[in-house]
Amino acid sequence: MIVRDFHELKTGPRAVSDAQWTSVRMLLADDGMGFSFHITTLAAGSTHTFHYKHHFESVYCISGRGAITDLATGETHEIRPGVMYALNLHDHHTLRADEELVMACCFNPPVTGTEVHRADGSYAPAEELAPADG
Amino acid sequence: MIVRDFHELKTGPRAVSDAQWTSVRMLLADDGMGFSFHITTLAAGSTHTFHYKHHFESVYCISGRGAITDLATGETHEIRPGVMYALNLHDHHTLRADEELVMACCFNPPVTGTEVHRADGSYAPAEELAPADG
Repeated sequence: MIVRDFHELKTGPRAVSDAQWTSVRMLLADDGMGFSFHITTLAAGSTHTFHYKHHFESVYCISGRGAITDLATGETHEIRPGVMYALNLHDHHTLRADEELVMACCFNPPVTGTEVHRADGSYAPAEELAPADG
Repeated sequence: MIVRDFHELKTGPRAVSDAQWTSVRMLLADDGMGFSFHITTLAAGSTHTFHYKHHFESVYCISGRGAITDLATGETHEIRPGVMYALNLHDHHTLRADEELVMACCFNPPVTGTEVHRADGSYAPAEELAPADG
């Protein structure tokens, strides 16, 4: 059994940040669960465009307010606590945080921890990456 | 893109209950994500013994207080908001809710929605089940 505490991990190497978001990797590929699980915090007033061409991702809103736009259809959905979106079509999307958003995210295949967002908003598929550093 | 709201689903057929817990199935096998994602609420004062012999499960505490005991080792870990446990060894365990617990749960392989807990605390493997009813 693995037991981890977000509040301990958020100041350590499992917290990956850029200026506008922090993702705490609660589970990564090397945990052997077949998915990764992240708690991601997006700064109030920020917008993010992602396109996970090689991953499925589900995102559940724990706290905060915002919106997600499906860039294929132009449709926008309100994000508030209890709303989940799932990128079952590897959907190209823009997430807007009107308030700070705290989101519970699952990735399949699991993120290894070494990915960076590429210019096209994707993460590389796992076979293009070095082994996970945890 | 799939968008669903826990607060709408919790009174419909995606909410599965017994006397002491309710699990709202935000994503099931037929959503094609490769995992299922549930928001599970466990009643204050309840205890639950589960043994997912055929699934990996991670459980993240959104709210509430309790404890999890690993029945193989006897070790007990406090559950509070931000704590996650992951049953990477299909760990036989008892979860105790001292306060109402709200937990975000990921299952691999995904739950189909037709499982019931068996006498041994497990869910049947997917190949023993009828197709999902969503």
